[in-house]
Amino acid sequence: MPKPKVALLVGSDSDIPTMREGIEVLKKLQISYELHIYSAHRTPDQTLRFAQKAHEQGFRVIIAGAGMAAHLAGVVASHTLLPVIGVPIEGKLQGLDSLLSTVQMPKGVPVGTVAIGKTGAVNAALLAAQILALSDEELLKRIGAYRFSMGQEVLNKDKELQGNARKFFKN
Amino acid sequence: MPKPKVALLVGSDSDIPTMREGIEVLKKLQISYELHIYSAHRTPDQTLRFAQKAHEQGFRVIIAGAGMAAHLAGVVASHTLLPVIGVPIEGKLQGLDSLLSTVQMPKGVPVGTVAIGKTGAVNAALLAAQILALSDEELLKRIGAYRFSMGQEVLNKDKELQGNARKFFKN
Amino acid sequence: MPKPKVALLVGSDSDIPTMREGIEVLKKLQISYELHIYSAHRTPDQTLRFAQKAHEQGFRVIIAGAGMAAHLAGVVASHTLLPVIGVPIEGKLQGLDSLLSTVQMPKGVPVGTVAIGKTGAVNAALLAAQILALSDEELLKRIGAYRFSMGQEVLNKDKELQGNARKFFKN
Amino acid sequence: MPKPKVALLVGSDSDIPTMREGIEVLKKLQISYELHIYSAHRTPDQTLRFAQKAHEQGFRVIIAGAGMAAHLAGVVASHTLLPVIGVPIEGKLQGLDSLLSTVQMPKGVPVGTVAIGKTGAVNAALLAAQILALSDEELLKRIGAYRFSMGQEVLNKDKELQGNARKFFKN
Amino acid sequence: MPKPKVALLVGSDSDIPTMREGIEVLKKLQISYELHIYSAHRTPDQTLRFAQKAHEQGFRVIIAGAGMAAHLAGVVASHTLLPVIGVPIEGKLQGLDSLLSTVQMPKGVPVGTVAIGKTGAVNAALLAAQILALSDEELLKRIGAYRFSMGQEVLNKDKELQGNARKFFKN
Amino acid sequence: MPKPKVALLVGSDSDIPTMREGIEVLKKLQISYELHIYSAHRTPDQTLRFAQKAHEQGFRVIIAGAGMAAHLAGVVASHTLLPVIGVPIEGKLQGLDSLLSTVQMPKGVPVGTVAIGKTGAVNAALLAAQILALSDEELLKRIGAYRFSMGQEVLNKDKELQGNARKFFKN
Amino acid sequence: MPKPKVALLVGSDSDIPTMREGIEVLKKLQISYELHIYSAHRTPDQTLRFAQKAHEQGFRVIIAGAGMAAHLAGVVASHTLLPVIGVPIEGKLQGLDSLLSTVQMPKGVPVGTVAIGKTGAVNAALLAAQILALSDEELLKRIGAYRFSMGQEVLNKDKELQGNARKFFKN
Amino acid sequence: MPKPKVALLVGSDSDIPTMREGIEVLKKLQISYELHIYSAHRTPDQTLRFAQKAHEQGFRVIIAGAGMAAHLAGVVASHTLLPVIGVPIEGKLQGLDSLLSTVQMPKGVPVGTVAIGKTGAVNAALLAAQILALSDEELLKRIGAYRFSMGQEVLNKDKELQGNARKFFKN
Repeated sequence: MPKPKVALLVGSDSDIPTMREGIEVLKKLQISYELHIYSAHRTPDQTLRFAQKAHEQGFRVIIAGAGMAAHLAGVVASHTLLPVIGVPIEGKLQGLDSLLSTVQMPKGVPVGTVAIGKTGAVNAALLAAQILALSDEELLKRIGAYRFSMGQEVLNKDKELQGNARKFFKN
Repeated sequence: MPKPKVALLVGSDSDIPTMREGIEVLKKLQISYELHIYSAHRTPDQTLRFAQKAHEQGFRVIIAGAGMAAHLAGVVASHTLLPVIGVPIEGKLQGLDSLLSTVQMPKGVPVGTVAIGKTGAVNAALLAAQILALSDEELLKRIGAYRFSMGQEVLNKDKELQGNARKFFKN
Repeated sequence: MPKPKVALLVGSDSDIPTMREGIEVLKKLQISYELHIYSAHRTPDQTLRFAQKAHEQGFRVIIAGAGMAAHLAGVVASHTLLPVIGVPIEGKLQGLDSLLSTVQMPKGVPVGTVAIGKTGAVNAALLAAQILALSDEELLKRIGAYRFSMGQEVLNKDKELQGNARKFFKN
Repeated sequence: MPKPKVALLVGSDSDIPTMREGIEVLKKLQISYELHIYSAHRTPDQTLRFAQKAHEQGFRVIIAGAGMAAHLAGVVASHTLLPVIGVPIEGKLQGLDSLLSTVQMPKGVPVGTVAIGKTGAVNAALLAAQILALSDEELLKRIGAYRFSMGQEVLNKDKELQGNARKFFKN
Repeated sequence: MPKPKVALLVGSDSDIPTMREGIEVLKKLQISYELHIYSAHRTPDQTLRFAQKAHEQGFRVIIAGAGMAAHLAGVVASHTLLPVIGVPIEGKLQGLDSLLSTVQMPKGVPVGTVAIGKTGAVNAALLAAQILALSDEELLKRIGAYRFSMGQEVLNKDKELQGNARKFFKN
Repeated sequence: MPKPKVALLVGSDSDIPTMREGIEVLKKLQISYELHIYSAHRTPDQTLRFAQKAHEQGFRVIIAGAGMAAHLAGVVASHTLLPVIGVPIEGKLQGLDSLLSTVQMPKGVPVGTVAIGKTGAVNAALLAAQILALSDEELLKRIGAYRFSMGQEVLNKDKELQGNARKFFKN
Repeated sequence: MPKPKVALLVGSDSDIPTMREGIEVLKKLQISYELHIYSAHRTPDQTLRFAQKAHEQGFRVIIAGAGMAAHLAGVVASHTLLPVIGVPIEGKLQGLDSLLSTVQMPKGVPVGTVAIGKTGAVNAALLAAQILALSDEELLKRIGAYRFSMGQEVLNKDKELQGNARKFFKN
Repeated sequence: MPKPKVALLVGSDSDIPTMREGIEVLKKLQISYELHIYSAHRTPDQTLRFAQKAHEQGFRVIIAGAGMAAHLAGVVASHTLLPVIGVPIEGKLQGLDSLLSTVQMPKGVPVGTVAIGKTGAVNAALLAAQILALSDEELLKRIGAYRFSMGQEVLNKDKELQGNARKFFKN
């Protein structure tokens, strides 16, 4: 039986570097995933077929990253009942266009939207992980460890800062 | 042989009053049209089927009005080669979300976007008319007459203003 | 054994009417929930204690709605590994402040954000339902039925419109 | 007899690089065009004379690109009944000023507005092509082929990604 | 010999109530003026003819108020060397569209822009007066008196407030 | 010896209702204050004289509320070394103009800015109180009690909600 | 007898490069000017003294350029009856803060605002020139010549473009 | 007995360079301070413990700088009665997200917010100093001297400019 999987869709190959760190989080948390390039506008048929079959193919969460009038997450969400997480990718207007196009979904078809750009990619991966962890205690522990180490990193930096502030002041 | 037709799509019946004055313009210019409620997200299959068949059904221009993360015009445009005109409808954020979701289409799939709300509905109808008039000289004359009378109305108001300013100062 | 539960938190009792329709969606989908008023800033201790214990108390998803510098969802998310869904509630600046305060979470602590206001409340409930349905096939069917009926409603309105357009043109 | 032509107007020679890719699309689709520099504000008389004569000179669509308080498309539209497509060009405020100055045209004189900057230039060319294709079946086929190949490019990239993801992860 | 005059242009009769208080300021300062309705887009020819002849007709300052993609002030400014003052009138987007369309004029054709709406109308009148007062000492005195009384009004209100605060607290 | 005092300045008497609840907070916390109407632009001399003498007159914190291009807090801050708290008051653009005019002070002359409108007025009063409490232990206790009761109010509402949700659902 | 003069004030020496091209316009038009660095906040007394004496020192127009919470133009305008032109200088938020702080002046004290940044500096100089030209026919001719040559430059570029498009396509 | 101290908190070590110049101001004014890295979201427990103990540890003012959905200042403010100054740090959307997340605090828990980025860091330090100076006359003198020298610097630059303008015109 296949493990629950995360589908990562991007509207263009130029969006992949933005998603990279999120993919690394999935790997670190040992979550299987597939990454695809599908455009809501240039390959609409393939996009919706993927969305329609995602559930039966074993995917459990779909992350969709797109820029500008970012319809990808919304189009996918309208063809599946899986939870869809949208990552607004920065193009013009500093990503305000993709943020609003992703988050302001009308009643009935939700997209859980995270922050613009690379930060959002990481958080999309973590939110997908937290969703999957509802039925996977081992994963929950790994997420807990990830978050703990994230906090430790901050605390270690603070400790280091108290010892040697100078190195932190370089721009 | 059917005359070229305009398809007017709205994402929700609550968008129809916004489109009303645009429909009146189509009537005045004697342009046949059909008005449909199709939601990009709640009825995605019907929306795309409509878009796919619009050309062979005799439509020549599609006007799509929707609010919030307004994907309707973009979804339609991705399934047809007919010119698509998008009307951003005001919901939240004074329509900035629907404006950006409509106008900021990525490369390859254009949506000609007009102003937010009722003004946009009128201008969408006029733009559709101007497109159809490229191969319909009678329609061109009607548009010319419409625009002329629009200008006359302004000039008449100015004349009236010179005679009796008081009535224009009421809020 | 208790059924998985959704926790709905609002920062102020004045936010409850905004959440109402979302609560009705949870009821319709037969999802058990609890609604609480906890303020990230005025009752910080109770808020974080709730977040810290939410998992062991059987909650599986937390929905947090707040306005202005809306920290509620973020504060909750920083004290739990449950998926947190944020609903930006409109106060000033048409909710742009609460939207950005909710969605722009820094790396490591995700909040899945939905649309501003009542639309977001409904979509938060649906997203929570879709998450819970990953391990509840009956719920998945109910969501599917809900979405199907939502589409039917659009199609019925379109059919009605073709028969009698006039009634849709009233503002 | 001359073929239908597209007029491309820019408000300044510094706007031409933004329009370049759009011009390449016109060439690829074998659409004849003329490119002119006319400023709504610095050469108002020439601009309006061009607009007034555009129809009789055989132009069928006018594309106007300008930045800041971008009046070019609107000024042109007020002197012709040809369809006018506006391309907001980025200067200050990330192009928000030119977007709003172009799209928010008052009732009666429409400008079909596309995305800010180079993306908009390409889409303006495609929208012009789709308009011209209403009476040119050969052009319609070329647009269809263009769009098909655009989709294929996405699908090929996805295929390549499945085989060798690494090359896509470079920023 | 005619006195220097101010021309007040509005794009629509619906803009007149916004300009009213500005007109009252002109009257109070005994500045002769003419008010006209000319639309940059619906009556472009009349608008530019007015602008071209404004100087020889004795006008010395032109105030232009318009909403949305507010081109009126810019169009006028491109056809005259008289100082042009633009009043952005609120329609959609709280007047941000008309503000940017008025103030962000490209190099070479200035429009001195004032605040959005009624406040701007008053300040446009005062700025016009200050310009005319450069060669009219009597007018300068009247403006000085106006400003002095404006300050006195504030100081009187403060005095009243110290005596009886209660009446100021009603909303 | 006079107790430390708070000076509340507003740019117009129409701003007083916005400040009212903040004044009530000062009263509740037994902090003496004076309220004045001084306009940065219409009574610049009185404004700066007040600022220059505020310290020697026993004031310890100055709260300044103004709208639009809200210069009042900044002008005051440039003439005193007392801490100045700015309250952006909503006029146009939902207060975004007054927020930015107040908070974006250039290097060297700080204004501690609080939220737009009535919420900001309350928080300005509390921030002033917290500043004064640095040297007034009794005041600190009163602020602590105020904040505690504020939290209790939230908790009581939550308790009430658990008992009788219905009354909270009315809009 | 001294010629009418323009005063150019900037809030910081870092603003001078932004004003440079505007100064060149003044020189070209043979308008005498003085450039000063005065900060509304760091040198408030000198700023207001300059404003108060500007008229008697022979200045006829004041141009003030500042960034962020740009109070300079407003502070100057509140201490003089000369026409004041504000140039919003870009710092943060792409100059939106300085634009709103300059243009949204409250009733009674106008600032004629031009575009953000260098474009605004040029247009401020031209607007000042147009104001001075109301009583200087020679200057009016020079402005007319300037504007004519500006138009010619556009037309020459268009001519060049028709002959050799290639050189314009380089970015 | 320890001198009153300022606590400077940042949400990430990457925020420290932004705060640097503010720290230099504290040093120049001889104000003791501690700088810590605490994240509202990644180290929530340490953050609130620091806030809860800040008063008894001798801190008198807390400066908190954070980016994006900047909750740090608000979280700290909800756990202390010390005055809290928030510095919005620029990340995405030019810092608009962190500005709104910091300044738009709901009723009851104030954060005195300063400008976005490095300017804000300097002004936060000065505002903290002005607060501490309410009970430290020597500090007040040092702030007075600092502000005087700041003004002198402007005046010296103006003097230099009058002598040799050329050096100021380099970009």
